[in-house]
Amino acid sequence: MTKRVFFFGEGKAEGDSKRRDLLGGKGAGLAEMTALGLPVPPGFTLSTEVCTEFFATPNKPDLPSGVDAEIAEALAKVEAVTGAKFGDPENPLLVSVRSGARASMPGMMDTILNLGLNDACAEGLAKKTGDARFAYDAYRRFIAMYSDVALELEREPFNAALDKLRVKTAQAKGLDITRINAEELKKKVPDSELSADDLKALVAEFLSIVKKTSGKDFPSDPHEQLRGAIRAVFRSWNTHRAVVYRRMHDIPDSWGTACNVQAMVFGNLGDTSATGVAFTRNPSTGEKKIFGEWLPKAQGEDVVAGIRTPLPIDGSPESLEAKMPDAYQALLRISEKLESHFRDMQDLEFTIQSGKLYMLQCRSGKRTSRAAVRIAVEQAKEKLISQEEAILRVDASSLDQLLHPTLDPKAPKKFLARGLAASPGAAVGHIVFSADEAEKRAAQGKPVILVRVETSPEDIHGMKAARGIITSRGGMTSHAAVIARGMGKACIAGCSAASISYAEQTLTVTVYDAEGRQSETVVLKKGDVVTIDGSTGTIYAGEVPTIPAALAGEFGELMAWADKVRTMKVRANADTPLDARTARSFGAEGIGLCRTEHMFFEEDRISAMREMILSDDVQQRERALAKLLPFQREDFVGIFQEMRGLKVTIRLLDPPLHEFLPNDPKQLQQLSRTMGVSVEKLETRTKDLHEFNPMLGHRGCRLAITYPEIYAMQVRAILEAALHVASQGTEVYPEIMIPLAITAGELLRMRAIVDKVAGEVFANAKPVPFSFGTMVELPRAAIVADQLANVAEFFSFGTNDLTQSAMGLSRDDAGKFLPAYVETGLLPKDPFVSIDTEGVGALVQIAVERGRKTRPNIKLGICGEHGGDPASCEFFQSVGLDYVSCSPFRVPIARLAVSQAALRARKAK
Amino acid sequence: MTKRVFFFGEGKAEGDSKRRDLLGGKGAGLAEMTALGLPVPPGFTLSTEVCTEFFATPNKPDLPSGVDAEIAEALAKVEAVTGAKFGDPENPLLVSVRSGARASMPGMMDTILNLGLNDACAEGLAKKTGDARFAYDAYRRFIAMYSDVALELEREPFNAALDKLRVKTAQAKGLDITRINAEELKKKVPDSELSADDLKALVAEFLSIVKKTSGKDFPSDPHEQLRGAIRAVFRSWNTHRAVVYRRMHDIPDSWGTACNVQAMVFGNLGDTSATGVAFTRNPSTGEKKIFGEWLPKAQGEDVVAGIRTPLPIDGSPESLEAKMPDAYQALLRISEKLESHFRDMQDLEFTIQSGKLYMLQCRSGKRTSRAAVRIAVEQAKEKLISQEEAILRVDASSLDQLLHPTLDPKAPKKFLARGLAASPGAAVGHIVFSADEAEKRAAQGKPVILVRVETSPEDIHGMKAARGIITSRGGMTSHAAVIARGMGKACIAGCSAASISYAEQTLTVTVYDAEGRQSETVVLKKGDVVTIDGSTGTIYAGEVPTIPAALAGEFGELMAWADKVRTMKVRANADTPLDARTARSFGAEGIGLCRTEHMFFEEDRISAMREMILSDDVQQRERALAKLLPFQREDFVGIFQEMRGLKVTIRLLDPPLHEFLPNDPKQLQQLSRTMGVSVEKLETRTKDLHEFNPMLGHRGCRLAITYPEIYAMQVRAILEAALHVASQGTEVYPEIMIPLAITAGELLRMRAIVDKVAGEVFANAKPVPFSFGTMVELPRAAIVADQLANVAEFFSFGTNDLTQSAMGLSRDDAGKFLPAYVETGLLPKDPFVSIDTEGVGALVQIAVERGRKTRPNIKLGICGEHGGDPASCEFFQSVGLDYVSCSPFRVPIARLAVSQAALRARKAK
Repeated sequence: MTKRVFFFGEGKAEGDSKRRDLLGGKGAGLAEMTALGLPVPPGFTLSTEVCTEFFATPNKPDLPSGVDAEIAEALAKVEAVTGAKFGDPENPLLVSVRSGARASMPGMMDTILNLGLNDACAEGLAKKTGDARFAYDAYRRFIAMYSDVALELEREPFNAALDKLRVKTAQAKGLDITRINAEELKKKVPDSELSADDLKALVAEFLSIVKKTSGKDFPSDPHEQLRGAIRAVFRSWNTHRAVVYRRMHDIPDSWGTACNVQAMVFGNLGDTSATGVAFTRNPSTGEKKIFGEWLPKAQGEDVVAGIRTPLPIDGSPESLEAKMPDAYQALLRISEKLESHFRDMQDLEFTIQSGKLYMLQCRSGKRTSRAAVRIAVEQAKEKLISQEEAILRVDASSLDQLLHPTLDPKAPKKFLARGLAASPGAAVGHIVFSADEAEKRAAQGKPVILVRVETSPEDIHGMKAARGIITSRGGMTSHAAVIARGMGKACIAGCSAASISYAEQTLTVTVYDAEGRQSETVVLKKGDVVTIDGSTGTIYAGEVPTIPAALAGEFGELMAWADKVRTMKVRANADTPLDARTARSFGAEGIGLCRTEHMFFEEDRISAMREMILSDDVQQRERALAKLLPFQREDFVGIFQEMRGLKVTIRLLDPPLHEFLPNDPKQLQQLSRTMGVSVEKLETRTKDLHEFNPMLGHRGCRLAITYPEIYAMQVRAILEAALHVASQGTEVYPEIMIPLAITAGELLRMRAIVDKVAGEVFANAKPVPFSFGTMVELPRAAIVADQLANVAEFFSFGTNDLTQSAMGLSRDDAGKFLPAYVETGLLPKDPFVSIDTEGVGALVQIAVERGRKTRPNIKLGICGEHGGDPASCEFFQSVGLDYVSCSPFRVPIARLAVSQAALRARKAK
Repeated sequence: MTKRVFFFGEGKAEGDSKRRDLLGGKGAGLAEMTALGLPVPPGFTLSTEVCTEFFATPNKPDLPSGVDAEIAEALAKVEAVTGAKFGDPENPLLVSVRSGARASMPGMMDTILNLGLNDACAEGLAKKTGDARFAYDAYRRFIAMYSDVALELEREPFNAALDKLRVKTAQAKGLDITRINAEELKKKVPDSELSADDLKALVAEFLSIVKKTSGKDFPSDPHEQLRGAIRAVFRSWNTHRAVVYRRMHDIPDSWGTACNVQAMVFGNLGDTSATGVAFTRNPSTGEKKIFGEWLPKAQGEDVVAGIRTPLPIDGSPESLEAKMPDAYQALLRISEKLESHFRDMQDLEFTIQSGKLYMLQCRSGKRTSRAAVRIAVEQAKEKLISQEEAILRVDASSLDQLLHPTLDPKAPKKFLARGLAASPGAAVGHIVFSADEAEKRAAQGKPVILVRVETSPEDIHGMKAARGIITSRGGMTSHAAVIARGMGKACIAGCSAASISYAEQTLTVTVYDAEGRQSETVVLKKGDVVTIDGSTGTIYAGEVPTIPAALAGEFGELMAWADKVRTMKVRANADTPLDARTARSFGAEGIGLCRTEHMFFEEDRISAMREMILSDDVQQRERALAKLLPFQREDFVGIFQEMRGLKVTIRLLDPPLHEFLPNDPKQLQQLSRTMGVSVEKLETRTKDLHEFNPMLGHRGCRLAITYPEIYAMQVRAILEAALHVASQGTEVYPEIMIPLAITAGELLRMRAIVDKVAGEVFANAKPVPFSFGTMVELPRAAIVADQLANVAEFFSFGTNDLTQSAMGLSRDDAGKFLPAYVETGLLPKDPFVSIDTEGVGALVQIAVERGRKTRPNIKLGICGEHGGDPASCEFFQSVGLDYVSCSPFRVPIARLAVSQAALRARKAK
């Protein structure tokens, strides 16, 4: 039979503390601390397997047979160590019963304290401690807690009885209680002011409430109490809040929780007792110095409950250091011992009973990303951990917090609305409703937030001028979202809760309360200040203080270590010289995706672009393209100069042409005047270009199959720019990339255009070397990758589009059902955030294998937004890509993520 | 060294006549006829490999070295057999030089006749035949033809000189030539009236034209002539028209053409000579009787040129049978011999020189589908071929002609416009512009064609009443197209050339002439008659006679034979009891796809559907669904009754909900009144439901993830209907199919809905057996098919959507570039017509393998429109599907196609 119950106490632990899966985090910590000889009250852990067995019959969950005997055996050991006995009035053993899952789920499951009390034992405890108030306080707390958690009775009658007692006490103190509410009453009459007799009477009343509401007597047998408490702890694994928490934190339902039964120690037993929590280093800054809070004469729960304000652990006259120096020194020693033992910053819970320090919990402490970086780097320097461990210690995705300004978490905030988290970062500004206004106010030095229903190329100058952007329509790939990400500006897109009136110059939001009831309507006018958090998609009223990004110091050291171990390169998606410079400053080793279409959205170019689109024949189109050529060439010169010595992958025109035409009647009329083309013709052409499913339409290289002159112009711009830059002695290496190919024939056709133009450009010059490749962004491309590789010298996986096409999910439309898929577990994660390895990933793998079969040295990269997602990077490492490419601001994340992936891959070998 | 030149003559042929790939069709036929001892003028064939070698250096195509010697050797044999000699004035050998590809490409490549003439030989020929007119006529024809084809000179000067001679002759005859044009002149002065002297003078003039325009003398050396002619024939393989023809007929460029050099025989050598063509059976009706035409005193080209009207070969006083009975009898014997030798109907060319019959060509004859069926069946009954061969002889896709009314090919037609061939068949009727009008007129017994910009559910009654439908907007999957195909009605969709005015009640088309110039504007008014051909997408003015469908007789016999050999079942896609009945009458063995959404478009249901969509909560939605339940149940009862004993696969709701809402303001207002909901609310909801890419949106089982009650209602309707029908003693077997699944989790969720409803419906009754399966229509579904098969008992491949998603091609939008892809060979065929085996097909194969791995007996079918495409059926056979399902009218095509696929698969083993 498998062992199910594991004793710990007196320096010995039956459980293997490495087996968190079996003992849970708390149980493993207790076992480890016990084995280290630290002062831990004895106890035992029921393994997570018991929980699994408990739920084996979902309709009637119950403890497995045989476990009772194991519990009795472990309990006997606890009794032996403590000298106390369950139900013995002379020296009653009291225990706590707590959950403890493999991953921390703070506050999500249930706990019962002071178990083992009944009338006789309470009396005995009073006698033994000489503190009747303490004994009956413990007893009444136990009854209330047990009734709630194990008996599942309403809390209300117990609270009402306690309130009644408080009122009575307050009146006795002569307080006017007519004007104070329950919360205030609790502060005015703290528990410590309730007398032993009052508490004893309260216990009697509590017992009668139990009898009245449940129809049964409160169980006075400690063994029955224990059995009920254990069942309750296991049951709490499947409460609604616990299930939701697991979903949010990717914790499998199948893990189950362990249950820890441990002899009680009392921090509230007179003035020489206390309780507290501590971190072995500062969890906010990472500083190497114990950090914590304590409360004299209190139980652990009091620190959390917030009724009394905890005191600092050191550095003040009220500190533990000052008040109980011995206990403080003991804690310091234990803190150091535990950190060097676990080789990580620990989060500790302790209790001091009658001057003696007991450890109740230790676990790896949660920390801010800032602290995580500093701790990892400093611990590595202290030789506590290796550099490689330091690299693995930092959650790569959390670096985002360090790379953009963030909202001060402590600042008060007034929530207004939530939209899509389209581009990360926090920004504060005055709202304006037009790009011109944004530019005007920004020129006056005022920070502005540009608010638009949707943005279009005409708004670019306003977006540049603004600190952040809000739109009420459009998805994660809308114009606003894409441009904002490129610019590194905070953006909230598709905030449908915000109603925008250009006429009134107002932004109206309806705010709901916690229960989803409409609570108020807020109308913001032009010039009003809002704060937006693009990382969460939230709009707040007024100014919320922000914390700037910080990239130097330990952060830089960690990145340098990471760069040494990774096998994949990291490039950036950058469309402008400015993007390129940012990318390079973040450590990008090239550009993996330079989208050329954004170059056409700029105000001075869009009219030539539109002229091209409205052309009736090749000659007209070529004339318009000739106007665009110098602009594109200039852009590429800038980018090549910024990226000197590095490779730059340039994707030729991708979006359908209708994206470049205006869509409202006023703009159409304006365009008609500018271009001297009738509105009717413009409308007809727009109607002609309309598509039912633009994602699957006339775009990518399909444009060049029908209008080869477009790509010919772009290739000329690239190669002329490369020649120009090379002639100045700058090393340049363009990689020309074809979008949306599904056949080798398309690539051959495109290659012919490239070769013809190259022949012309380099007719009288030393040719600049370049390479030719394709996006793999449709399932067919992955399937026929062996054929594509005959022509393409590199593949770049466009996993955004590949996800859309392979899963049949339009990113702009999925908002209506994708959240339901993720919330109810149909999909493990949003597949646009982390690559769907089973489906989309399988296609990537097929393409990798087939591509390499044809061309063993083919260069393979990924330029979808998954390139900046750590979980996806792990996958890309596993299929053997050469590089990932992501937005400039995610380059450090990717560098760390691919380093971690490389380390894990090495370990797995 | 490979043999390149193959002699035939005197009963012996060097080439293996089975090797059409090497000898071409004509060369193989000549070799075969020679070997059969038939009277074939001797000659030789240069193989297609010579053509390939000719083009090996594309910039400078030339004959391979060494081939000259082989030609000389073969020529010597021809000289030996004929006794004539190249360039010998006493007895000059004249030859024809003709192309001859593996597949027939009539008129696409070049031919040169009478080669071998020069001044001396012409004189010799005149002497030998005693017919100087004949000799110089042959000479001047040769010079003109050779100058055009081999020397690539302009034809015009030669034609002008000939015209001048005709004018002179006409004037000599006393004709007034001022009023006649060149064509009429040709008839007034036939070549036979030009005198020998005139022709001799013409020859001299031709030779001087050559000298003047080319700067060189016309080659008088027959060997030089021959070399030039052979080069010209090979060159003609790559003329523009030949390339276009190959593209249209799926002939690979790589095949090349052979070149046949053959001793001339002359049908124009006096009154005992003639020329003609014949079919061994009637190519139009299939009747077993020689069928052909002839011309006395003429060369083969004259029959084709149409200057003289050919005469019937038999059954009239002017027939060959009457005029040259010996030659006719000889032809009859040869005809029978060739048909029984080749075991197929032959297309013959013959020439009679001085009373002696010569065979110049034989090949399998082209025939109408009607004839193809009759010939195949009769030949099988004659034991000429086996039943299996008969099955393989008929082009399955051509059966379409027999299954719908077709336009009489001989009838004169006035072309008006072309749109998409959305639903096949021909229809004649008076045009009307509203559904009500269509219904009204049809009730009066008048045939009508319904003309709409687009159709919507409100138009269904009008579509039912109409003979055919024309829309100016919408693609192959527009409402009009889908509904019309389901109804088996002719439909032309997206005819953008037609401008429709509801206000004026007019349909305006601009007609272009052959050169693409606008020639006239036709305005059709309500009540005007048009004829539409839904198989080609063409609209004609007025009434064009149609030929009704004929399914009995030989057709029925052939289908019965086919059914015996096939291994795949054939089902139909049918949404209504009427569809089901049609399908069954065409031999469908079940329904492979019953789309439930069309049931909601009917006028009496759409309002309940809209109520459901506009509901604010589950309760409201369930109330609206309860109204739909009886309608759906009734539909299923009807379908189950029609399909008694057969399986019916029902797909639950698939399209996005916005498809059910009206989209023009007027309809919205009307709906607002009917439903008592404000227009604003309707607009908001419509806006909410709008999708950027509906194909990839909130549809399929995603609807039931968010609104499970919709599927619950549908499942209830299915199972209640099944129970009702079963209780009447009718055998019923529903198969419930989930659309758009990409995860096994979705299927589990859907299965739970089905099981719950089934438990309720069958609570007090004997359960009706049913099965549960899924569409596989997205790449991810194919990739994770092993997981899906854990839940699904069957897969049905939705290859329409799978093609769209795998290739990233929106069917509705691809019109702008897909034609260019097919025309320029980037894709071998329209992937929506024939499945893209390399890409989409590979995904089907992956899904088949993985699905069977999990569930070896999983049932696999296909219900995309590829199910009715023969080439696709071949593929489905190869991957081992259990059935194909297609529209009712294509069921016979599919039955034949899968039989052919089974036979070929058996042979390939």
